[in-house]
Amino acid sequence: MKGRIFSGMRPTGSLHIGHLSVIQNWAALQSEYQSYYGIVDQHALTTGYEDGLDFGALIREIALDWLSVGIDPDQSAVFVQSHIKEHAELHLLLSMITPLSWLERVPTYKDQMQQLGKEGGKDIATYGFLGYPLLQAADILVYKANAVPVGEDQIPHIELCREIARRFNHLYGPVFPEPKALIGKVPLLPGVDGRKMSKSYNNTISLTASTAEIKERVQQMVTDPARLRKDDPGHPEVCVVYKFHEVYTPEVAEVEENCRGGKIGCVACKRHLAENLDKLLSPFRERRAAWEEPGKVEQVLEQGAEQARQVTQETMKEVRHVMGLR
Amino acid sequence: MKGRIFSGMRPTGSLHIGHLSVIQNWAALQSEYQSYYGIVDQHALTTGYEDGLDFGALIREIALDWLSVGIDPDQSAVFVQSHIKEHAELHLLLSMITPLSWLERVPTYKDQMQQLGKEGGKDIATYGFLGYPLLQAADILVYKANAVPVGEDQIPHIELCREIARRFNHLYGPVFPEPKALIGKVPLLPGVDGRKMSKSYNNTISLTASTAEIKERVQQMVTDPARLRKDDPGHPEVCVVYKFHEVYTPEVAEVEENCRGGKIGCVACKRHLAENLDKLLSPFRERRAAWEEPGKVEQVLEQGAEQARQVTQETMKEVRHVMGLR
Ligand code: SF4
Ligand code: SF4
Repeated sequence: MKGRIFSGMRPTGSLHIGHLSVIQNWAALQSEYQSYYGIVDQHALTTGYEDGLDFGALIREIALDWLSVGIDPDQSAVFVQSHIKEHAELHLLLSMITPLSWLERVPTYKDQMQQLGKEGGKDIATYGFLGYPLLQAADILVYKANAVPVGEDQIPHIELCREIARRFNHLYGPVFPEPKALIGKVPLLPGVDGRKMSKSYNNTISLTASTAEIKERVQQMVTDPARLRKDDPGHPEVCVVYKFHEVYTPEVAEVEENCRGGKIGCVACKRHLAENLDKLLSPFRERRAAWEEPGKVEQVLEQGAEQARQVTQETMKEVRHVMGLR
Repeated sequence: MKGRIFSGMRPTGSLHIGHLSVIQNWAALQSEYQSYYGIVDQHALTTGYEDGLDFGALIREIALDWLSVGIDPDQSAVFVQSHIKEHAELHLLLSMITPLSWLERVPTYKDQMQQLGKEGGKDIATYGFLGYPLLQAADILVYKANAVPVGEDQIPHIELCREIARRFNHLYGPVFPEPKALIGKVPLLPGVDGRKMSKSYNNTISLTASTAEIKERVQQMVTDPARLRKDDPGHPEVCVVYKFHEVYTPEVAEVEENCRGGKIGCVACKRHLAENLDKLLSPFRERRAAWEEPGKVEQVLEQGAEQARQVTQETMKEVRHVMGLR
């Protein structure tokens, strides 16, 4: 029997090229694992409850992003967290056994409280925000996931999830496997202006970017400021274009040599990158167009929810039973 | 249209005569209000998650207690909290908007933490225990209850519930009525030994007590120690028997007079009380015997759950809609 994985993303806007490796990693795992990929709208509320988020549109957008990159609904269950009521139920039941101190010491709690709260002006000193790593644990455990593909920053959350699983199993008997973190390699791509890639800086390359948009974004990329003429020797290590070549251009060694040797101009070097990025993204655009037909995404989410419920209802039956509930 | 009320009790063991007035109050309200009475098993877990509670038996027991006293399933919905998934869902969604500080300042939080935690040796410094007044708010709001019959000690919880309703309505539009507390008059009956009536002191009179058990319990009641002889003048204010006469004996003035005047012996006075208590409890015993037939309680809870779900599903549709969820 295949192991199970769960992972999720918040539907807070369409994805950009910085998210690509994560979804590609999910896509690569789906033949090896029975995969449950959740669009975690309830998580989006932990920090965005005041933002008037239009989940209908946001969910459709992120589902299209996933499908276009290669999440295959014939292999993986793709669904919306709030459609699967067992997430909330397990969250409530796990809350009974989860020490407050475990949640208070999660490193992201104080960090985000600082960043989003004090600096970002968001009022997130809520019960739900404190509990979001517990909701995450419920998301994972309700599928009895064996593994969770995550970024490094999520390791403390997976550790907490394992602790909660252990405590539950200790109190009520062995129900949950302790999921292990599958750390995906995520290349760190800067935004076109050299800062952190972020929609709020308007420096991203969208996964849906057209050929023209890609060209425009690459033209905006910051290059080695020391290169005034085409034959000045360049320093790829300070150049945003080069950082993208490193990830997406197979013949990157040649790019480096040409740059350092002053054998290529930045204009040509950028054209080269834009072509490679277009090659990367164009199959996604095509697949996306097919998925965009009315009703198709809805059908995927419906089918994914049914597959999810088959597992979550089984799990909750067992959880209720060992806790003495019906 | 009738207003709605919600109230609940934890299934932690069969009820005693000290609980009677609360249930009688519920029974009196059911013609005036559309009533939802929940057996709140998930609440019992907030403090009892380690106790290996057998909810199957506990739920049947408390349901029989309610039905025998006069909760009428043709008028009221009687159901089990954990069977109605919308309680957990609303609890999760309300958690997003509920400031942590509101929960931390609930007076019962620190009190119980002290009593059950430090003194009682229970490990209740959990996320779920902190959140139990929020779960209570969800219990009430998911029925859009206009009123909640409660004891005085619950007033801070109803106040919190109203605050949460206001905050929700302010953020997302008017969904919830602000429920008002219907404070039921609860006569304070001592245990037979004069201490607080409590199962842990073994000083209660069970609602299911037989004629013989009632007689035995009344005989154990502490009377005025100054009365050595039948014609010594008595002091009813220090006598447990008299405290019960005050509540359950219509001709209580006569009892007082006879006691003070040394015109009646304690044995006869107790016999009088035992007869009155038997008159009080015997119709409950009869009704209980009828409800005890196999399958009848189960049917009541099934039917109550259906009635409850009709309301909770409507409420959640509206809640999800205004929060932007499907
Ligand atoms: S040649 Fe290419 S790598 Fe070198 S600075 Fe210009 S754009 Fe950057
Ligand atoms: S006569 Fe009745 S009221 Fe007076 S002390 Fe005896 S038992 Fe109590």
